[in-house]
Amino acid sequence: MSTFADRLITAIRAKGNPCVVGLDPRIEMMPRFVTSAVEAGGGDAFGDAITRFHDHVLDAAADLVPAVKLQSAFYEQYGLPGMRAFAGTIERARAAGLVVIVDAKRNDIGSTAEAYANAFLARISVLGRPVPTWDVDCITVSPFLGRDSLEPFADACREHGKGIFVLVKTSNPGSRDLQDQLVETGEPLSVGLAAMVDELGAETIGDSGYSSIGAVVGATFPEEAELLRRLMPRAIILVPGYGAQGGTADGAAVNFNADGLGAVVNASRSITYEYGDVSVTPAEFTVRVRENVAHMVADIKRALAHQASPQP
Amino acid sequence: MSTFADRLITAIRAKGNPCVVGLDPRIEMMPRFVTSAVEAGGGDAFGDAITRFHDHVLDAAADLVPAVKLQSAFYEQYGLPGMRAFAGTIERARAAGLVVIVDAKRNDIGSTAEAYANAFLARISVLGRPVPTWDVDCITVSPFLGRDSLEPFADACREHGKGIFVLVKTSNPGSRDLQDQLVETGEPLSVGLAAMVDELGAETIGDSGYSSIGAVVGATFPEEAELLRRLMPRAIILVPGYGAQGGTADGAAVNFNADGLGAVVNASRSITYEYGDVSVTPAEFTVRVRENVAHMVADIKRALAHQASPQP
Repeated sequence: MSTFADRLITAIRAKGNPCVVGLDPRIEMMPRFVTSAVEAGGGDAFGDAITRFHDHVLDAAADLVPAVKLQSAFYEQYGLPGMRAFAGTIERARAAGLVVIVDAKRNDIGSTAEAYANAFLARISVLGRPVPTWDVDCITVSPFLGRDSLEPFADACREHGKGIFVLVKTSNPGSRDLQDQLVETGEPLSVGLAAMVDELGAETIGDSGYSSIGAVVGATFPEEAELLRRLMPRAIILVPGYGAQGGTADGAAVNFNADGLGAVVNASRSITYEYGDVSVTPAEFTVRVRENVAHMVADIKRALAHQASPQP
Repeated sequence: MSTFADRLITAIRAKGNPCVVGLDPRIEMMPRFVTSAVEAGGGDAFGDAITRFHDHVLDAAADLVPAVKLQSAFYEQYGLPGMRAFAGTIERARAAGLVVIVDAKRNDIGSTAEAYANAFLARISVLGRPVPTWDVDCITVSPFLGRDSLEPFADACREHGKGIFVLVKTSNPGSRDLQDQLVETGEPLSVGLAAMVDELGAETIGDSGYSSIGAVVGATFPEEAELLRRLMPRAIILVPGYGAQGGTADGAAVNFNADGLGAVVNASRSITYEYGDVSVTPAEFTVRVRENVAHMVADIKRALAHQASPQP
C-alpha cells in the first residue's frame, strides 16, 4: 500500500506543479448555465447544480493539477443535497485520478475522533456490510484538543495509507489569538504544534522522504512559515490563503523545501469563480478555468525558481 | 424571537432537570430489534437502523429531559446514510419539543465559518429557494482559529435566536497540551478563552439573564471548572464526560451557578447503550432508557442540592 505522501509527491511530479484547486460550492456565484436549473426548481436542484458545476471544473482542470480540495463547510451549508453533491464530486475526482483532500478541520476526543477518522479515511464494515464512508486521501484536522485527539487520525493514516494536515498557523488575523501566544517554552504555540506534527509523522515516512502527517500554514505570514518549515522538515504543508485571501506566490514559496517539494498551494475562488459574467457558456467557462489554473501554476513556479536561485 | 438561552432555561425548568441525552449512533452497539434489518441488507439499511434506534430513544426520553445532543462524528462515519438519519432525527427531536444541540466542534475562517453557521443555525434562501439547512438550536464550536472565527457564529446566534458552545476545557487528558498552557498573562489558555466567551456573549443576554454564547467544560477537571464558571457567569456550560468518561455528578455540579442553573450535563453511552443484552425487546429497551435517565437525573439533582447546602 502506498502512503498518502508518496501518492501526492508522485502526482505533483507527474503534473509538474504543486497547485490544488479548491472546490467551494457557492451557488449564488455560479454561472447561469448551472444555476438556471435551481431557479426552475424540482427534485434535488441544489445538489444537482453543485455537482454539475464541479463536473465542469474537474473537466477543465483535472489534467493540470495533482489534487483538489473540497471545503466541507460550503457543502454542509446546503444540507442533505449538499452532502449528496459532496459524495458525487469525491467519486468523480477520484475517477479523474486526482488526490482528494477534504478541508473539514474536524476533531474530537477518543472514540469520537476515531469516528471522524473512519468517516473520512477508512473503509470499514459494520455487521458484515461495507459502510459507504467518504474514503478520501486526506483531511485537515484541528489540534485544539491535544495530541491524544490526533492519534486516532495518525493510526488511520498508517492503516489505510491516508494523510492529514494538522492546523498549525492559519491565514486569518485571528490566528494570533491562540496560535501566536507565547507559552511556557517562551515560543509561540504554533512552534509547539509544529514539533508535535513532526513527531507524529515520524512513523509514516514513505519512499519520498515525506510523512503523511502534514500541516496547514497560511500564505499570509511568510516569516512564521519559514521557521515552521524548518521545524517540520518531512511534513507536507498545505498552504491556503493564496489569491483571494491576499497571500502571494512568494509568501507561499517559503513553505517549500530546497528540493522544490514539501508543500501544496490551494486556490479556490480565484480559479473557479473568476470566469467573467454569469452568462458565460460552458465552453467559455472551461477556457477561463484552464487560464486561471495556468496563471496560478506559472506564478507559483516563478516564485519557487526565484527562491531556489542564489539571493544577491 | 426568543433567544437560545431563554428557550433552554425554560425547557430545563419545565422538565425539572438540566440533563441532556447524547445520541451517538454506533450500530454495532444497538439491540437486535434494530440491527437485524442491517444484517438483512437492502436500501438504506444503515440510515434506517440509526433512525429507528433514535426514534425509540426519543420515545423513551423526550418527556424526561430538556434537550438532546447529536454527535456529528458518529453520523458522519456512516456516510450519506448517516447524514439522512441525522436529518431525520433532528426533525423528530424538534417535533418532540426538545432543544436540539449538535456536537460538531466546527470552525474555519471568514466566509467559511459563516458557511458552517449557515449550515447549522440559519434558515437561508439561495436564488429565491429555501435551503434545507440543518437548522438546529445550537452547535459546539472550536476557538482554535481565534476570535474572528467565532464572530460569524455569534452573528448567526443573534440573527436567528440560536446558540453556540465554545470549547474552553475539554474532558480528555490531552486537553493539557494546548488548553492548560500558561500564556503571556501567566494564566492557562482556557482562562483567556473563558474571557473571550464572556465578552462575545454580552450582546446575546436574554430575559433569563443567560447568554446564548456558552462554553464546553469537561466534568473531569472540577478545579479548573470552578474558576471557569466564575469567569463566564452568564454563559451556559455544556458539561460532557459524565458517566462513561469517568466524570462524576459532583464534578459536573461545580459548573452550575448558585441559582441552580447555568449548565447542562450530557450523557450518551450510559443512557442509550446500557440496556442489557442485544436480544432486548423494544418495550424492555424503553424501560431501561427511562431508568437510565431517571438515575442520571437523580444523581445530578443530588449533587446540585449538596452543592447548594452550606458546607460544614
